[in-house]
Parts: sequence; C-alpha cells; structure tokens
Amino acid sequence: MPAEARVAGRALHPRDSALVRAARGRPTEHVPVWFMRQAGRSLPEYRAVRARIAMLDACMRPEVVTEITLQPVRRYGVDAAILFSDIVVPLRAAGVDVEIVAGVGPVIATPVRDLDSARAVPDLDADQLDFLAAAVGELVAELGPTPLIGFAGAPYTLASYLIEGGPSRDLARTKALMWGAPDVWSELMDALTRLTTTFLRAQAMAGASVIQLFDSWAGNLSAQDYRRFVLPYSTEVLEACADLGVPRIHFGLGTGEILPDLAAAGADVVGIDWRVPLDVASERIGATYAVQGNLDPTAVFAPWEVIEAKADDALSRGRRAAGHIFNLGHGVLPDTDPDVLARLVDHVHHWSPTR
Amino acid sequence: MPAEARVAGRALHPRDSALVRAARGRPTEHVPVWFMRQAGRSLPEYRAVRARIAMLDACMRPEVVTEITLQPVRRYGVDAAILFSDIVVPLRAAGVDVEIVAGVGPVIATPVRDLDSARAVPDLDADQLDFLAAAVGELVAELGPTPLIGFAGAPYTLASYLIEGGPSRDLARTKALMWGAPDVWSELMDALTRLTTTFLRAQAMAGASVIQLFDSWAGNLSAQDYRRFVLPYSTEVLEACADLGVPRIHFGLGTGEILPDLAAAGADVVGIDWRVPLDVASERIGATYAVQGNLDPTAVFAPWEVIEAKADDALSRGRRAAGHIFNLGHGVLPDTDPDVLARLVDHVHHWSPTR
Repeated sequence: MPAEARVAGRALHPRDSALVRAARGRPTEHVPVWFMRQAGRSLPEYRAVRARIAMLDACMRPEVVTEITLQPVRRYGVDAAILFSDIVVPLRAAGVDVEIVAGVGPVIATPVRDLDSARAVPDLDADQLDFLAAAVGELVAELGPTPLIGFAGAPYTLASYLIEGGPSRDLARTKALMWGAPDVWSELMDALTRLTTTFLRAQAMAGASVIQLFDSWAGNLSAQDYRRFVLPYSTEVLEACADLGVPRIHFGLGTGEILPDLAAAGADVVGIDWRVPLDVASERIGATYAVQGNLDPTAVFAPWEVIEAKADDALSRGRRAAGHIFNLGHGVLPDTDPDVLARLVDHVHHWSPTR
Repeated sequence: MPAEARVAGRALHPRDSALVRAARGRPTEHVPVWFMRQAGRSLPEYRAVRARIAMLDACMRPEVVTEITLQPVRRYGVDAAILFSDIVVPLRAAGVDVEIVAGVGPVIATPVRDLDSARAVPDLDADQLDFLAAAVGELVAELGPTPLIGFAGAPYTLASYLIEGGPSRDLARTKALMWGAPDVWSELMDALTRLTTTFLRAQAMAGASVIQLFDSWAGNLSAQDYRRFVLPYSTEVLEACADLGVPRIHFGLGTGEILPDLAAAGADVVGIDWRVPLDVASERIGATYAVQGNLDPTAVFAPWEVIEAKADDALSRGRRAAGHIFNLGHGVLPDTDPDVLARLVDHVHHWSPTR
C-alpha cells in the first residue's frame, strides 16, 4: 500500500501534518507517533534489502535509502518517516575512512588523538551530498503529506566515535581529550559542528520537514561538563538551522540532569528517554516546549496490557507539554515484533484524553 | 608494608575510623577515601595473582580473597578495604551454575524464565559461606584499625543476570518478566532478597565494619518502576541488616531520578555517580545522609590539574552532606594508572576546606 493511501485525508502538506503541528505546539486531532530506528533490523523487509548491501553503502544509495525509509511508513502508518542513515554517514561522505563492522559498530581507521588529526577532519562539500539530496527529494515526492524527519548525530557523539576509534562503553579517551587538550577538543568540535550543520541543512533544503539532532551520549557527562564542552556546539548546530523553517528535535539518553540545556540549545521538541516521566520533563524544561518519547523500548516485549498502560501513561503525561510526539525512549530494539508496533500506532491514533 | 603501618596513629578500632565516622555523619580529621573496584585489574600485583586462578575460584578461596583485598590498602593507604568478590559469588556459593567467561562476564547455565526456574533458585546456608567468614576474619585481623567494607549486588542486579543469562545492554528480558509475570518476579526477588541478606549479614557478623549494596542497573528503570518492582526488595535487605550496627552504603549508576529512594531504602550513605554534583545530591536526599562519590572514573586519564580540580570540586560540594566518603562515581577502569590513584589518596587526605 503506498504511503499516501495510509495518510489520505489527514493533511495536504507535511507542514500541516499532526507531527509538525505538535512539534510547533499547535493542536492536533490525534497524537502523532513514530519510532526511533523504525527503519531497521526489526523489519523482515529491511533485512531482505540489507542482505544484499553493506550498511554504509545502503545509507548512501538513494534508491536503497528511499526503500528502507518508506518501509515502516507503509507497514505502520506512522506519522513521519525518518531518513534511513547512520550517525557516521556525514563522516564517510566527507571522506573519513570509517566502516561499520558487523557485531562491533563504526570503526575509524585513523582515530583523532591530537591537533593534527583533529585538523585533518575534512569539511563536507555540497557535491558530496548529492546522494542525500536525491534520496530526500525522492522521499518527499513519495511521502506526500507525511513529513520526513532529517537527522544527524550531534558533534559530541560524532567526536566520541572519532576519538575512541569505535564504540566505547566509558568514553575514557574522549573525556580525557576533552578535559586535557581543550585546543584539540575545540578544533575537532568546530569541524564536527560545521559538518553536522551542513548535513542537517542539506536534508531540510531538499525537503525534510523536521530535523532531529541525536546526542546519544550527552547523558554520560555531568551537567557541568555538558554545558562547558558540548552544549555550545550543539547550540551552534541548531541555531544554524533556525532559518530553515523546520522544527528541531534534540534527543539524548539519560539526560535527566540536562533537560533544560537540551531545550535551550535551540530545540522546539525535546526527546525524553523512559527515565523521566513526560510531565516531569515539562516541569523541568517549561511547558512551552513540545516533548517526544518516552515509552521504554523494552516495554514492547511485555504483554499488551502492560504496553497499553505504559503508553496511556505517557499520553496522559504528555498533555502537559505544548505538544507531544509519541515515540519510544530510545531506538526500536532488533527483536521487536513489528505487529506490536503496528498495534501501538493504532492505539495512539485512537487514544483520546476524555476516553 | 603491612596495612597497619599505613594507618598507624589514625584510630584504634575500625568503628573510630574516618570512614565509619563519615558514614555516620560524625566529624573526621580528613575526608576518607576508597575506590570502588580498587582491588582489581588496574593493579599489576592483582593480575599476577589472577594469572594463576579463575575469577570465581579467586573469590571463594580465603587466602586469595585476603591477598587481593589487601593489595590496594598496602599500595594506596586508602581508608577502607573492600572485600574482593563478585556480584554473582552468592549465587555460586548457593549452588547456582554460573561461570565468569573472559571477555563476556557472568554466564548462567539455566536462566530464570518461569515460575519453576524462579523457585529453583536455592537459599544460601551458613555453611556455604565458610570461605567468606574465613576471609573476612583473616582480613579484619590483618587490617587492624582499617575498616573492611562488605558488599553484595542488590536483588534487581542479580535478577538481571539470572534472567538474561549473562550481561545485557537493554535488560529486555528482565523488564519483560518484571512487567509481564509479576508472580515469577516476586518469587525470584524474594529468593534473591534472602540470599543477599544472608551474604551481607555473614560479612558483617564476621567483622566487616560497613556494608555496601550495589544496584548497578537501578538507574536503568523509571522511578515508577524502580519504586514498584525493586525498591521494596532492596529496602528489605538493608532493613534486615539494620541490627548489625554497621553503616550501610547504597549505590547505583545513573540514579539521579531515584536518589531519595536509594536513601529511604535504609541507607546511611548514598553512593553518587558523576552525573549529579554532591551538593545537588544532598539537596535531593536531605543533608542528614552521608554521600559517597563522585569523581568521574575517566577523569584519572586527564592531566593532574584536571583531576585535582574535579576532586576539589567534589570535596567542596561534599561538605553539604552529613558526611562525605571520597570515591569514584563508578569502579576503577582497568587501564587506570595506580600512581594516579595513589596521588589522589594523598591529595584527599591533605585537602582542607580552609586551604
């Protein structure tokens, strides 16, 4: 079933969609819903596509990006598509030698450890993003009134991969460099701020209706360190996207201590994981912001009654905010049953506070 | 150098030590300091011992436990020894088939997934803890006035290993069982509450001067779920140890949202990771509690000036609490340079608020 059929009659243009309206704090007929990592390993149709192509190649071939991005929209009737990509895609596009190794994650050939290697992080040129503009253009045409969410990893999360050379539990090298070599840190973060900005702007300029800045590891820092070493760069990225006329979502995991900072960085919507109830989040950041989240991604493995109760709790608490975009508190886990997500979408769409 | 020599003149009995006094909110001449995982992989003398013996065997042979537990006291002159053990030791002692697999972590032969397997979790008998009583007795004799901290993993953290069958990033099976099978959950948590209580009480009765309940994964839950599914059991453990006359430390990672609960569970001291400054923690839990922590364990990889500034910040903020036990915000990382920890101990011991 084409995506348009699922959303027929809802809205004529993405800017009038429930998702964009909720992100702007405007009333909607239903609470919009999408899932972080909705396009990915939990879908058999995704695994069928990926059986034939490596991860980063898949992210950089417009026809593959388009197909994978549309899969969850077709299946679930979610209120938004999110561009199929990976946090390291802008690095690869800029010419950084990065591979995604199965069972490991991103591996950087030459990690950044000093001023020379920080200076060697290349800028992104517009012509290196032709694949992105092509994929977004194709998607926007296919999606019709359903908004496309563009996304990028925040400078801090990208920096952690570049410095560690790959995934790390403790981010020990990243923090040691951040604290111990401020000149290297600012050089690297400035470069990643430019790269992230270019990558996000390209998506919005090609037609994405919303952008999300993912700072997966932001919650790993104390608020003090976050404010000093990370927030200025994320703020620069989000502010550099302010003129694009698209709502900006800012998300990180375990961010209870820094929620007001995530908001103040230039977000219209703050993504909340499952640790902070949405009404508590609204109290912390102010009710003028919209919120997104926060069902525990492991809740989908519980019986339906549990999922329903948790979803209803999030829906009720989300009403305190200017707007609520229903989502999980982190990405869809690989073993998630797609039928449960489909049922959840229907449930959210039919939920009403007066019921 | 024997442990006694390092602490000569400080105190005659562990109950008068700086650590126990700080834990009770009494004044001390210096801020006491120890490090979670101080006995472990960062020490060459530890690696030398462990080259000859498997992890769980090392934890259950009194002479090995004694040697490894004393190593950091000799090297650093810390204000406490912590019993060398592992979270799964009480399970192994009770007869559960568990191994620690190098590069993986604890692996449970028969994971708990239903009521029968929950009922099959055995109780711990006193005679299964002879090794523990022997190790603690020997240690107390060796340590003289330096207190020994006994420890156990909290029921929730133990349950997660038993249910997942090993380490897990998301605890998806654990939470699904917790939410979806409350009868199995309460059966298992009751069993683990008995087991943990027995294990902690045995250490205190053999002479440990302080006990610490580690709930590594407590911060992975929403406050709502923590209060409903975990807190009652941890409270039962800590309250069952109230008559022993030893201060109780309660620690978990990423617990900003549940700090008052960790305190109310029956703690004298609340362990704080690096995400919440100690004065903020004291505001949340009340200044009548002592606090422990909270230097980021990765800070030790930064230049000394950074470590010193962060340590001084923790020392200053810790003054708001009834007592402050200086520690890292989580365990010592394997690559930590022991000389840095030694310097940190000296620094803390010589720190004074009026300096």
